[in-house]
Amino acid sequence: MIKLKNRRVISRLSRYKNALYRFRELGFERIYSDYLAEEVGVTSSQVRKDFSLFDMTGNKRAGYQISLLLEKLEQLFLKDRIQKVIIVGAGRLGSAFSHYRGFSREKIEIVAAFDIDPSKTSASRSVPVRPLSEMDDFIKSEGIELAILTVPERVAEDVYAKLVNAGIKGVLNFAPIPLKPTETCIVTTYCVELELETLIYFVNEGIGGLDAEDCD
Amino acid sequence: MIKLKNRRVISRLSRYKNALYRFRELGFERIYSDYLAEEVGVTSSQVRKDFSLFDMTGNKRAGYQISLLLEKLEQLFLKDRIQKVIIVGAGRLGSAFSHYRGFSREKIEIVAAFDIDPSKTSASRSVPVRPLSEMDDFIKSEGIELAILTVPERVAEDVYAKLVNAGIKGVLNFAPIPLKPTETCIVTTYCVELELETLIYFVNEGIGGLDAEDCD
Repeated sequence: MIKLKNRRVISRLSRYKNALYRFRELGFERIYSDYLAEEVGVTSSQVRKDFSLFDMTGNKRAGYQISLLLEKLEQLFLKDRIQKVIIVGAGRLGSAFSHYRGFSREKIEIVAAFDIDPSKTSASRSVPVRPLSEMDDFIKSEGIELAILTVPERVAEDVYAKLVNAGIKGVLNFAPIPLKPTETCIVTTYCVELELETLIYFVNEGIGGLDAEDCD
Repeated sequence: MIKLKNRRVISRLSRYKNALYRFRELGFERIYSDYLAEEVGVTSSQVRKDFSLFDMTGNKRAGYQISLLLEKLEQLFLKDRIQKVIIVGAGRLGSAFSHYRGFSREKIEIVAAFDIDPSKTSASRSVPVRPLSEMDDFIKSEGIELAILTVPERVAEDVYAKLVNAGIKGVLNFAPIPLKPTETCIVTTYCVELELETLIYFVNEGIGGLDAEDCD
């Protein structure tokens, strides 16, 4: 198994994989790098370079074989097992993620949500909402490694510390403060107002026709 | 006014600004680059390099003056005016953003949401939900340039085309498909399963102690 430390490569590979699923659903068996490049919003030379990491080379006339590419990518992303994830904070955003259907096709299962507010706890939902006091035991007994953090800003650091202490190794943080990674836990923070602000900057500067993700 | 085309610089400047607000709230008047670097999760030399873009130089003994930095950053991000934004798709995620309180401090105002489902339209909410059929007129008459797209995947491309035709210049897309930027419109796509998948990759590879955002 190759090891890649670059987050942007991994993110592109994940996007290729999802695009390849779409092409396969449409009945394609082979694909040219420029089709995939256009679908994902990168250059075709980038696609070829990324695939060469796996010793995957295309054929100018016939392109790449989709099933082989997907086999390699699924190995990389460990699609042979289900990844269990908890949500912490069962407000509107947490609830939106609890009901999101895009996880199952990625073999990601939201196994529980946690909230400090007793009025939000419920065992009867598709994703049960449990009291925050049960979180530590649950993480340990179920061996959970991943959490989506959708609590308010003022409690985010405290809850994050609880998650790390319980053994969580990766956090997707939606509270609008940066949480510092620890020796044992990685954090990715998504801050919607920051993304919007960046977009506003480029709109106001009149930089159209660019994918904002590819501006750098 | 300086012009920056690099999305990652803009994103860092936005994060510095938010961190500076927090330091100011705590009573700080001056700040050292290493404090700010730690708060934002970058190196202090990166902070100094970014600030030198504005001819802002710190002082080894006294650091940077927070009010001056904020003045420059607020100019850059046009904080003298309110940015009006619409939400398209009033499901759980759209509703979460409608109620999100983090926008107002960034002078971002969600002025309306739109949905095709008549059972979701309501004029009485804090953010009114209007029928999708009124969207085109609303965008044109109100001069809206920005939209948050939270519709299901299967209609995302159609709705995106409607937004571009109506004159929208920037879209924050939460549908899990890449939407192509046009001559007049920039798109940033956020795909939660992709972010989670990238996080899972790094957790499984045992790359702890790193901010996943800084792995590249």
